[in-house]
Amino acid sequence: MVTEKTISFNRGVPSVRSFPTDQIKECAGAILSTDAHTVLQYGKPLGYMPLREHIAGWYGVSPDEVLISNGSLQILEFLSTIFLQPGDTVFVEQPTYDRTVVSFRRHAANIVSIPVQSDGPDAKVLAERLRAVVPKFFYTIPDFQNPTGVTTSLANRQEIVRLAAEYDFWILEDAPYRPLRYRGTDVASMWSLSPDRVMHLSSFTKLLSPGLRVGYVVAAADVIQAIGPIAANTYVCPGLLAEGIVYEFCRRGWLKPNIDRLKQLYRPKLDATVGALQEHLPDASWTEPEGGYFVGVTMPQGTSIGALLEKARTVGLILSDGRGFFAEGGGDRFLRLAFPALSVQEIHEGISRLARLVTGR
Amino acid sequence: MVTEKTISFNRGVPSVRSFPTDQIKECAGAILSTDAHTVLQYGKPLGYMPLREHIAGWYGVSPDEVLISNGSLQILEFLSTIFLQPGDTVFVEQPTYDRTVVSFRRHAANIVSIPVQSDGPDAKVLAERLRAVVPKFFYTIPDFQNPTGVTTSLANRQEIVRLAAEYDFWILEDAPYRPLRYRGTDVASMWSLSPDRVMHLSSFTKLLSPGLRVGYVVAAADVIQAIGPIAANTYVCPGLLAEGIVYEFCRRGWLKPNIDRLKQLYRPKLDATVGALQEHLPDASWTEPEGGYFVGVTMPQGTSIGALLEKARTVGLILSDGRGFFAEGGGDRFLRLAFPALSVQEIHEGISRLARLVTGR
Repeated sequence: MVTEKTISFNRGVPSVRSFPTDQIKECAGAILSTDAHTVLQYGKPLGYMPLREHIAGWYGVSPDEVLISNGSLQILEFLSTIFLQPGDTVFVEQPTYDRTVVSFRRHAANIVSIPVQSDGPDAKVLAERLRAVVPKFFYTIPDFQNPTGVTTSLANRQEIVRLAAEYDFWILEDAPYRPLRYRGTDVASMWSLSPDRVMHLSSFTKLLSPGLRVGYVVAAADVIQAIGPIAANTYVCPGLLAEGIVYEFCRRGWLKPNIDRLKQLYRPKLDATVGALQEHLPDASWTEPEGGYFVGVTMPQGTSIGALLEKARTVGLILSDGRGFFAEGGGDRFLRLAFPALSVQEIHEGISRLARLVTGR
Repeated sequence: MVTEKTISFNRGVPSVRSFPTDQIKECAGAILSTDAHTVLQYGKPLGYMPLREHIAGWYGVSPDEVLISNGSLQILEFLSTIFLQPGDTVFVEQPTYDRTVVSFRRHAANIVSIPVQSDGPDAKVLAERLRAVVPKFFYTIPDFQNPTGVTTSLANRQEIVRLAAEYDFWILEDAPYRPLRYRGTDVASMWSLSPDRVMHLSSFTKLLSPGLRVGYVVAAADVIQAIGPIAANTYVCPGLLAEGIVYEFCRRGWLKPNIDRLKQLYRPKLDATVGALQEHLPDASWTEPEGGYFVGVTMPQGTSIGALLEKARTVGLILSDGRGFFAEGGGDRFLRLAFPALSVQEIHEGISRLARLVTGR
């Protein structure tokens, strides 16, 4: 019988308290006053032009190099459609974001995993794998990786980019958490190191709201052009009112203060997660993240994730199955702890429950 | 040199004057006041539950039989993913909506066309084709068809449904124009005739706004369940704020009056289109639609659509290439005239220009 309040470390979702609801409401009213004939009508498959221009400004590129869609996963699906023939190889990190692997598998891709260490994907293993097969692209989450929380070092990024040039493959840089850095300093994005070879995905899901479903990709204009007809024949155009609201939010200069607010909100939760792990599970191992949503934890020797998940439910603890993040098997001792939607108190209580299950005390 | 204002009969888009902008604004404010924690958060892949329940109420089904997505074309793409293996056969009408055919082709389907007559798809040809091959589904637009404007008769619907039962295939009923009936009386939907065998697609694009991107399907619960994981792995969840706005609009009882207003707005445009055709192009042929967005016109013998399109541009007239609506070739004399976004005056002027090109006078 569960007598305690259920605590879920399972889903990488923001806290509902994080939503700038009143500001979003104001932006909805504003865009419907100034540009209703555009945002309520059919539009271009590449997205709402004022927002494309605004994002292009951030990156110092032309709007032709920006496409906006209903979340960045949808863009990943488009890129798979364009780049992948059945049997083509894709490199991913190990562990990696599970939904991406599902998308690649749906396109019958051959998945090769590159282990993630404390400074990002192991470039030596990457080089070894490349001698056997060259992928269409390498899918990587360099900032506060999902699910490990690891940030790829600059040296590592440079080496990956160099290998991409040498072996001629694309890098798919998924960077939705990048602006949520709680400490330390930004590492140059893969895209900035090699804009011709990197497709940079990001979104407003973690910075504003998931329900709006607004994600984007910055890539070479010919890649963006190639997505156009596929997007048109999938959904005619993306959700334009949502894009108009996001545009209005950005145009007013509200995004940066909102990100600052989110950092204030989430930093103590990251600290609580790491602190509680140190206190209750000193035999587990993890890389301390400098931002983002997750701490990836390898549990002590002897832990079986399947049994742990079952037991956890009996004490009101919902954990994600770490094995889901390992495309080629493994992860039997891996847990992804998502902290943003939990309170500091829930984090302490949850990790304390977890420790009792693991240590049997 | 174009000296006259350009008139476009090309795209099936609503008039921007049709958008109930102030009401949409009010609904956006309202849903963000009452349910922000749901519509701004990640949600279920099947869509915003209050709207699913509301739509289920219209059809007298369970919410489990309703899925909402970012427009109905996206749902069609999901259904193709579920039902179609490369080489599978799909029946479509001839002519039919061009984007649908593109989606089926992307899934490497074998397309078989059933000619549309003044009472809908020719059931005799359908029966003949079925003796050769049974499709996974028959994609049909029974109400004010895109691109012909034709409505399938009840007798024809009953025969198609009977054949579907006899030969065991699905019917995909695309019904976005159905509520926009300007005269005559409703014909029973295919879905109502055979709910177990028909998937009924519709959307708020033509009834409210395209830019919101809210479409839905009513189908057997196991079909809806099968779409769930594909939707989740494509976009996690659809655009929930847009769905919340639509829900609020419907909940307030504003949809019916809005549809009545659209009928008032579009009926005279349909009448103008038919009247101008009778006056200027008596040698062309068409079926007079009772609703919807389009009049499909077969031009007089000797007309070549390619040459006509070119010439039209020189007199400031944008026409759609009728051949695009014929999946298996043909349509050399076919034009789809979309009237909702034009004024009555533009319709008269446009068809008069068209007639001058065709008759050479």
